[in-house]
Amino acid sequence: MIIREKEPANLEMPFANLDGFITPNEQFYVRCHFPIPEIEARDWRLKVEGAVEHPFELAYNEITRMKTRTITATLECAGNSRVFLVPKVKGTQWELGAVGNAEWTGVALADVLNQAGMKDNACEVILEGADNGAIPEPPRPAGKIHFARSLPKAKAMDDVLLAFKMNGEPLPAAHGFPLRAIVPGWYAMASIKWLERIIVTEKVFNGYYQSIDYAHWQQSEAGPALVPITEMQVKAEIARPGINEVVRAGSSYLVAGAAWTSRSEIAKVELSTDGGAMWQVVRLIDQPVKNAWQLWEFDWKTPSESGHCSLLARASDVRGRTQPDKRDADHGTYMINHSLPIDVEVR
Amino acid sequence: MIIREKEPANLEMPFANLDGFITPNEQFYVRCHFPIPEIEARDWRLKVEGAVEHPFELAYNEITRMKTRTITATLECAGNSRVFLVPKVKGTQWELGAVGNAEWTGVALADVLNQAGMKDNACEVILEGADNGAIPEPPRPAGKIHFARSLPKAKAMDDVLLAFKMNGEPLPAAHGFPLRAIVPGWYAMASIKWLERIIVTEKVFNGYYQSIDYAHWQQSEAGPALVPITEMQVKAEIARPGINEVVRAGSSYLVAGAAWTSRSEIAKVELSTDGGAMWQVVRLIDQPVKNAWQLWEFDWKTPSESGHCSLLARASDVRGRTQPDKRDADHGTYMINHSLPIDVEVR
Repeated sequence: MIIREKEPANLEMPFANLDGFITPNEQFYVRCHFPIPEIEARDWRLKVEGAVEHPFELAYNEITRMKTRTITATLECAGNSRVFLVPKVKGTQWELGAVGNAEWTGVALADVLNQAGMKDNACEVILEGADNGAIPEPPRPAGKIHFARSLPKAKAMDDVLLAFKMNGEPLPAAHGFPLRAIVPGWYAMASIKWLERIIVTEKVFNGYYQSIDYAHWQQSEAGPALVPITEMQVKAEIARPGINEVVRAGSSYLVAGAAWTSRSEIAKVELSTDGGAMWQVVRLIDQPVKNAWQLWEFDWKTPSESGHCSLLARASDVRGRTQPDKRDADHGTYMINHSLPIDVEVR
Repeated sequence: MIIREKEPANLEMPFANLDGFITPNEQFYVRCHFPIPEIEARDWRLKVEGAVEHPFELAYNEITRMKTRTITATLECAGNSRVFLVPKVKGTQWELGAVGNAEWTGVALADVLNQAGMKDNACEVILEGADNGAIPEPPRPAGKIHFARSLPKAKAMDDVLLAFKMNGEPLPAAHGFPLRAIVPGWYAMASIKWLERIIVTEKVFNGYYQSIDYAHWQQSEAGPALVPITEMQVKAEIARPGINEVVRAGSSYLVAGAAWTSRSEIAKVELSTDGGAMWQVVRLIDQPVKNAWQLWEFDWKTPSESGHCSLLARASDVRGRTQPDKRDADHGTYMINHSLPIDVEVR
């Protein structure tokens, strides 16, 4: 793993290591905002409160005995690929590997909410983690805050999972032990780790991590307005060749990568090996799995002469959305899904 | 005037110059975010659009021919008194004089909105000025934006004025010629100058000047949430003596100042001349005027011996709100209404 930050732990998978549909737990990128909370399952409770008929708590062994589901879901950090932004911006300089795909086992958030009975005027469901600390730079709230994000009621009742297993094993500490949310199709800041409190609210929550941080600009009739980051944007990444890799001239090279989107499936991935002038459709591997990435590959006949090549991948989904060529500046330092150049040397 | 910034113009009234209930136009503080727009009345139109039955435009001479009202209203910059914050924070270092009280003549925003006919699902009314520019630091939207703020429908229909006269004269360029909003009881960032567009919207507007800027933290059931700055907080300021003024020992000194609040009247102002140990009630001058400040004075028998005194004023309003002794850190760099020490030398 590439250590982007030691404390709090921010670890990236070298994306050239992509090896199959499922990312092993020890290869899965780690994104922490605060030190990893040390939680004993027997001391921990999940609190369900706010605008509900029956506020209650659940112990770890109560949750694991509930009806479980297993889903496959790709999680991408909203700041993945930030190192490609020009000019450089603040924030962890993720390359391509702040993304992974795993099998998650847990209980439906909807089941927990139904048990509590949401009041009619409920509007959002806030998920709060045990991780907490002080924000170093203004604009910041006073004192320590917890990492927390809200979901619209409809999304919370749809497909959100409260997971206690990752690829069949108990959730590792770095990935949210004992319980984390999995919000399919959304950037991973929504998939709260070390989940401790579920708060049903009657009004829109405008917490730090969906206003000052993890928000972007959306054009409105009266200029740009700040909105929380939610769904992942359609995106393909090239795993191999890696950045600045040397490839043999006049040979065959298996270009490989992954592509993902939200509320849809990948329809096609195109590849350019000449900086975007010509594009060819690549081969998608296996059938699409809802909310999971799609692996792809392409047999590249490398140029017969030495030189440099810039490879670009471009994904389109079934809803007709295509990865843009150019960066959308209103996305700030997040949602980096324009086609990213992988420059290689042919020798 | 104290020049806090030359371009864009940010000018403060030396508050020791407070001389009567009405602040003369040339003494009234100026707060600009961008260069002052040069507008000719004959070329200018006010556009009314968005969720309305009849979008339309008004020319300057059409507005001045409408039914007018004259109100007195105090405007305070949301960052007034920022120089008192410890530790120092970014932003214009206003002392006590980013506040003023004037007579404003114009038409009711409600009359204009009624003429356009707001749709049933209208939720907010956005006021947009002609002033515009690029935001220098992230998190920022791309390109140039206009200064704009929204009002809840109820406030927009209540007492908001679209003013074209200030103290009986045409609105000066620095104060928003040809037309500005006056939002009584709110910090002055809401009283949009150089008003050009009124946009009725069906959802809450989360523009730059009510999220990244001019917002503060409010504690909620799930931690602090970011909310736009709106109403002025109850506050008294001491105009005389000024900071570090030398006063004569064993004499009588007429302490003078002003106090204001929102949606209420000033009930009393107390003064301490010993750093907050003892408090005495001051004399309020004249009857209260809705939305305007209340002048006050106090005959101070200065100590017979040389030394230093710290003067503090503390206002309370009829709704039972009292100026706090300590700064609320969740207010960030705005809404500075704790009792501010005016240190003087007795000689």
